[in-house]
Amino acid sequence: MVIENHIVDVEVPGPGLYEITGDLNERLKALQIESGLMTLFIQHTSASLLIQENADPSAKRDLEVWLNRLVPENDAIYSHVAEGADDMPAHIKAMLTAVNLSIPISKRTLVLGTWQGVFLWEHRRATKKRQIVLNVVGR
Amino acid sequence: MVIENHIVDVEVPGPGLYEITGDLNERLKALQIESGLMTLFIQHTSASLLIQENADPSAKRDLEVWLNRLVPENDAIYSHVAEGADDMPAHIKAMLTAVNLSIPISKRTLVLGTWQGVFLWEHRRATKKRQIVLNVVGR
Amino acid sequence: MVIENHIVDVEVPGPGLYEITGDLNERLKALQIESGLMTLFIQHTSASLLIQENADPSAKRDLEVWLNRLVPENDAIYSHVAEGADDMPAHIKAMLTAVNLSIPISKRTLVLGTWQGVFLWEHRRATKKRQIVLNVVGR
Repeated sequence: MVIENHIVDVEVPGPGLYEITGDLNERLKALQIESGLMTLFIQHTSASLLIQENADPSAKRDLEVWLNRLVPENDAIYSHVAEGADDMPAHIKAMLTAVNLSIPISKRTLVLGTWQGVFLWEHRRATKKRQIVLNVVGR
Repeated sequence: MVIENHIVDVEVPGPGLYEITGDLNERLKALQIESGLMTLFIQHTSASLLIQENADPSAKRDLEVWLNRLVPENDAIYSHVAEGADDMPAHIKAMLTAVNLSIPISKRTLVLGTWQGVFLWEHRRATKKRQIVLNVVGR
Repeated sequence: MVIENHIVDVEVPGPGLYEITGDLNERLKALQIESGLMTLFIQHTSASLLIQENADPSAKRDLEVWLNRLVPENDAIYSHVAEGADDMPAHIKAMLTAVNLSIPISKRTLVLGTWQGVFLWEHRRATKKRQIVLNVVGR
């Protein structure tokens, strides 16, 4: 049985959902884990992780539009505004989605469902580089 | 130390919260794990997982009613509508709840609190069969 | 490779976000795990876990205010009201945040990002004692 941590760097051009499933599968291939568990942990409070439909781009678009409406910028209740109008909404959106995900590994493959993709969700406008810690335990 | 994956098939009659705690405990009994960690991963984007109160049915009902009101069908912002009025709300509800859960195992038992039950949350009307991957690491 | 469970007791004076990062690091020091994964599981349905910004108190305050507005007390749709006006909102708030968190361990340290703290989020007024199960797998 092995347990290891690796760093996954992700560069993004702005807010939105960015699929990283391909990157994760590449990593997994190199790790030679037959059966186990992959845990992803994003080291940020204004970007998050999500597993959702990756087939039809309209589903991804609607998730973004819906969450942007639920958590708008310039809400009168915000007191944490020094870092920009997109900062506090980013923290709230991250709170409502995931900081970590755990996906079983079977036959050297992530056991994702047919329509599932893994996404990094960038909630800020100016940030470009995000870091995810990939933990794998298995044999 | 062992690490294993198993498939849990769940058949549901329609939308709602379905408790699977009993099934999981049955599985655990067969696995002979004294101490460890059980991770559940649902392989779908329009059904999700939840741990919540399983004692009073009114709590379960209110969770469903509240989420249905927050994420109604036929919202004018939806563009992903080809698969039915319940499809995009299902993706959003899944986004707001969990695709995976991790529960420690101690003394061959899931360490759930007194009032905690594990539920599959079906968000669609027509789907009947759902699949959860159960990963267990322990000794 | 070891896998162990420990109990973390947290006493809180009322509703709000309480940082437990320091407690967890203390625990980790005693465990002598070089590399691995820490999973936290809260055994309650009206308190939850969150990883969010721990630097500026205004961010923490805004998260609380925002969630309190989204999930108010005395909503006409609630039927689960026997245990007090703060009970059903507590279940919903717990549903929208996390019952479990998994954080990789590297060089005997939790790999939290610069601005990340781990919080217990108490959603009820009267409850004082909460229990978290800390599972660690590693070497």
